[in-house]
Amino acid sequence: MAKRFAADKYVEGILAGNRVLLSQAITLVESRLPSDQELAHEVMDKVLPHTGNSIRIGITGVPGVGKSTFIETFGTYLIQAQQKKLAVLAIDPTSQRSGGSILGDKTRMELLSMNPQAYIRPSPAGKSLGGVTRSTRESILLCEAAGFDAIIVETVGVGQSETAVHEMVDFFLLLMLAGAGDELQGIKRGIMEMADAIAITKADEQNILKANAAKSEYQNALHLYPVAASGWLPKVSVCSALQNTGLDQIWETITEYLQLTQNNGFFEKKRRDQNLQWMFEAIRQGLEEKFYANPQVKMQLPALKTVVQEGQKSAFAAAAELLKLL
Amino acid sequence: MAKRFAADKYVEGILAGNRVLLSQAITLVESRLPSDQELAHEVMDKVLPHTGNSIRIGITGVPGVGKSTFIETFGTYLIQAQQKKLAVLAIDPTSQRSGGSILGDKTRMELLSMNPQAYIRPSPAGKSLGGVTRSTRESILLCEAAGFDAIIVETVGVGQSETAVHEMVDFFLLLMLAGAGDELQGIKRGIMEMADAIAITKADEQNILKANAAKSEYQNALHLYPVAASGWLPKVSVCSALQNTGLDQIWETITEYLQLTQNNGFFEKKRRDQNLQWMFEAIRQGLEEKFYANPQVKMQLPALKTVVQEGQKSAFAAAAELLKLL
Repeated sequence: MAKRFAADKYVEGILAGNRVLLSQAITLVESRLPSDQELAHEVMDKVLPHTGNSIRIGITGVPGVGKSTFIETFGTYLIQAQQKKLAVLAIDPTSQRSGGSILGDKTRMELLSMNPQAYIRPSPAGKSLGGVTRSTRESILLCEAAGFDAIIVETVGVGQSETAVHEMVDFFLLLMLAGAGDELQGIKRGIMEMADAIAITKADEQNILKANAAKSEYQNALHLYPVAASGWLPKVSVCSALQNTGLDQIWETITEYLQLTQNNGFFEKKRRDQNLQWMFEAIRQGLEEKFYANPQVKMQLPALKTVVQEGQKSAFAAAAELLKLL
Repeated sequence: MAKRFAADKYVEGILAGNRVLLSQAITLVESRLPSDQELAHEVMDKVLPHTGNSIRIGITGVPGVGKSTFIETFGTYLIQAQQKKLAVLAIDPTSQRSGGSILGDKTRMELLSMNPQAYIRPSPAGKSLGGVTRSTRESILLCEAAGFDAIIVETVGVGQSETAVHEMVDFFLLLMLAGAGDELQGIKRGIMEMADAIAITKADEQNILKANAAKSEYQNALHLYPVAASGWLPKVSVCSALQNTGLDQIWETITEYLQLTQNNGFFEKKRRDQNLQWMFEAIRQGLEEKFYANPQVKMQLPALKTVVQEGQKSAFAAAAELLKLL
């Protein structure tokens, strides 16, 4: 086991902006060792008064949309043009299996990773979505305590991780390619309706016309959607990481969103709701972890799964049988 | 406590199409008494080999879209033109509070409720969404065992019940009003993308042009959506319960969907996945019910909720505190 410090050591280090201690604290919240978890809770409770002062931005898009390049360019813009301190976190339980499609390899964001105002943390290896979700939420708070005032949470638009990210950020940005055809098929249904903004990437050279056409199309489609509880109407824009264009437009959209939702109280309400939701989800995860780790449950589950799938036993009777084992 | 029979009595009655025993068995699955639940599991396991032979259709739409009238008319069409035996179930935990907006009052479907080929069962009173969801799933199976080969599960397009319904049906139909303006605001975001078909209601008299315009608009918008895992492209049509038009078109869409998904294996796969999902959800519900019924948890939860919402304690530390009470 790696060496651990007392909680105060992490807290002081984080508040002083010490990246080594920040990284070690994130490792702590990612750990499943009970002793680490207890230490992590203590650290979390102590940094908590120093959290919340950032804009939390979720970014998703299918592989091929140019997500890393966008985050590298947009992140650099946030640092240089908006004087932000930026942390980039990833939530993708499959990242290690798919060969580092998402932050698995820091060098994919070479410029950002060398920028002293940026902190990049890849998704932890070998974790379930639930595990990644929980530790990413805590990592956001740790980064905020360390003084980062713009947090990007990156995910891939093909799984269930989008919902998880949507539930932990203030603003959700969907990256899309021009052309409403085959390229879209990788995006999971339901994700478009979660987006606060859509950015059409690679709007450069011979792509510009196509990108602008896609922009109008999506803007029209979004008008058909029910109005969000925030009162915000999602915006569509085009951008090019290659030519460094459209980034100010996206930032403007984000600040407009912040103004609207901070004025009408939605921003604060959403964060409070998210806090509560995180607690209930942590409870659910805790209950399920304990249940599925039970040796009796582990032994009987596989056979029951099969008979339930085949329709030989009702799902409810099977569940009752397993619950009785506790 | 009401009188209970042995499991076989219910099973025999249901298989013989006895509605009184069917209703009593549904009451059994709705009951939270442990003895009732055990009896219900026995009944469920015994009817299980006789289930599955229906098309399960979820129908949603905001209040005012004419849902009851549509189900009455479409249901009568299914019985008369398609020789179906129809069961209509409702999933809406708020139905009793909102004054019977949804099947709370059987007389809202007067014709159907008097039709000997139809069986209508309102949503159980005073239940949580989780409770309603579980009992509705079991009720579907009981109705199938009783010989009903078309099951409509009705819900209101304003809450979380749509996702629950979507997870228990084969085909999901969204009813909408013409005009993409204010009327839509009641529909929850994300529901449009769950729909296998959209039907624009009240396409009669001076509404026809508007309804047809809305149809084209939605059809265009749906083309922008990612293709569903079923390979199915959602269809939009118009209908009028008043003039009895457009119902055959909707049925045709449903049969086209069935043909496609039964041929490509999606139909069977979805049902198998749903079975498994129901089991995991029943486990989750069972774990949470037990947890939140714990007197210690009950006592400490309210105060913890407040400090978590206010950001005075981290969600994870609060969850850990509560989990330790077990």
